[in-house]
Amino acid sequence: MTDSLRDLAQELVRFADDRDWRQFHSPKNLASALVVEAGELLEHFQWATEAQSRELAPDKRDAVGAELADVLLYLIQLATALGIDPIAAAQTKLKLNELKYPVNRARGNSKKYDEL
Amino acid sequence: MTDSLRDLAQELVRFADDRDWRQFHSPKNLASALVVEAGELLEHFQWATEAQSRELAPDKRDAVGAELADVLLYLIQLATALGIDPIAAAQTKLKLNELKYPVNRARGNSKKYDEL
Amino acid sequence: MTDSLRDLAQELVRFADDRDWRQFHSPKNLASALVVEAGELLEHFQWATEAQSRELAPDKRDAVGAELADVLLYLIQLATALGIDPIAAAQTKLKLNELKYPVNRARGNSKKYDEL
Amino acid sequence: MTDSLRDLAQELVRFADDRDWRQFHSPKNLASALVVEAGELLEHFQWATEAQSRELAPDKRDAVGAELADVLLYLIQLATALGIDPIAAAQTKLKLNELKYPVNRARGNSKKYDEL
Repeated sequence: MTDSLRDLAQELVRFADDRDWRQFHSPKNLASALVVEAGELLEHFQWATEAQSRELAPDKRDAVGAELADVLLYLIQLATALGIDPIAAAQTKLKLNELKYPVNRARGNSKKYDEL
Repeated sequence: MTDSLRDLAQELVRFADDRDWRQFHSPKNLASALVVEAGELLEHFQWATEAQSRELAPDKRDAVGAELADVLLYLIQLATALGIDPIAAAQTKLKLNELKYPVNRARGNSKKYDEL
Repeated sequence: MTDSLRDLAQELVRFADDRDWRQFHSPKNLASALVVEAGELLEHFQWATEAQSRELAPDKRDAVGAELADVLLYLIQLATALGIDPIAAAQTKLKLNELKYPVNRARGNSKKYDEL
Repeated sequence: MTDSLRDLAQELVRFADDRDWRQFHSPKNLASALVVEAGELLEHFQWATEAQSRELAPDKRDAVGAELADVLLYLIQLATALGIDPIAAAQTKLKLNELKYPVNRARGNSKKYDEL
C-alpha cells in the first residue's frame, strides 16, 4: 500500500544519503532547521491582518506553500531520524485533544484547556 | 484511495468545526501556533549535544513525538485553510532542491546553495 | 559610567560561571534557547486579535514581561559569548533601516524595503 | 541620566511615528516579528557544530550581530508598546533564576529546575 508521507520519507533518506548529509542531520540540527523554516513561514504573515491572511494573492500563496513544504520536509526527516511515525503521533495527539477540549466547553472559546 | 495525511486533514476540519474554532484559525494565527510548537520541539534539544540528540531515551522520544505531532497538526490546518496540498508542495520543493544541491558539489558539504 | 545592559551582562557571566554552565552556553545553544523563549512569548498572542494584544490584563502583561525578559537574558549572553556589543549593533541596524525605509516612501506602508 | 536601552527605545518610537507604523505595531505583530528575526539568527548556527559556533569568522560574526540587533529592536518596541521595562523585567527574572537554580544543585548540570 502506498502512502504519500512514507514515500516522501524514503525520498528524503535517499536525497541526504546521496549527499552524505547524515553527519549534519542530527535531531538537534533538524529541529533547529525546522524552527528556522517555520519562522520564514510566519514572516509572510507578520504585518498582515488576519483578514488579509485569509485572502492571499496567488503568488503569495505559492510562496507560503514553498515555506510550508520546507517545514514538512524537515519534520519528516526529524521523524525518520528518531524512528517516530508522524501520522501515528498526530492521531494520538488528536485523540488527546478530543479529551482536553470537550465540545461543550471549548465551543467558540480559544482558551487553553487548563483555563477552560 | 486512502491517504494518511488527507484523512488527518478531514478529521481536523471536523474537530475545529465542532468547536466553532474557524474564527480563530486564520492563516496568520495558525502560522503563529505552528512556530510556537516548533519552539517547544526545539526546547527538548537546546542543551543536548548532537550526539545526545541521536540517542534519546524512550520517554524523551515520546515527548518529542508529541511536539512533532503538534507541529504537523497545525501545518495540515494551515495548508487546508490556504488550499495548499502539502505533499505536492513538498514534492515540488524536493525537486527544486535536487537542482540547487547537485550531488557532486553538495556531497559532504553543509553550505547553502548560493555559497557552494 | 553605569549602563543597565552592561550591568546585566556582567551579572549573567557570574551567574553562569557560578554554575559551571559555560560548557553548555555555546552560541549555537544560546541561539536555540533564545528562539525557544521567543516562541513562548508569541504563545501569549497566538489566538488574540491585534486589538486584544494592545489591551492586556495586568497579570497577562506580567507573564509576557517574564518571557520578554528570558529572551533578553539569552540575547545578552549570546552577545557576550560572541564579543558583540548589542547596543552598537542595534544603533548600526537602525541607521541602516533609516536608509532602507525613507519616510516619504515607507509612510503608512508595511511592505518590505525591496518591495516599496 | 542616560541609558543606552532607553535611548534606543525613544529613537524607535520616533522612527515608527515618522513612518506612521504604529498601526502595524500591535504587540501581536511585534512578537511575531521578534520570533521571525530570532529564526534568522538561529539559521546561522543550524548546521554548525557547537565548537564551530564558538569560533565564528569575523564576517559571520557581523552577520550574526545584525540579526541579534533585529531581535533587540523588536524586543524594545514590544516592551514599549506594553509599558514593560525590559531591564527591570530581566533583573526580576534573574533573581528568580537564582532561586530556581541554586549553585550547589545546578553546578555542571543543564537540567531544567523541576528535574534537578
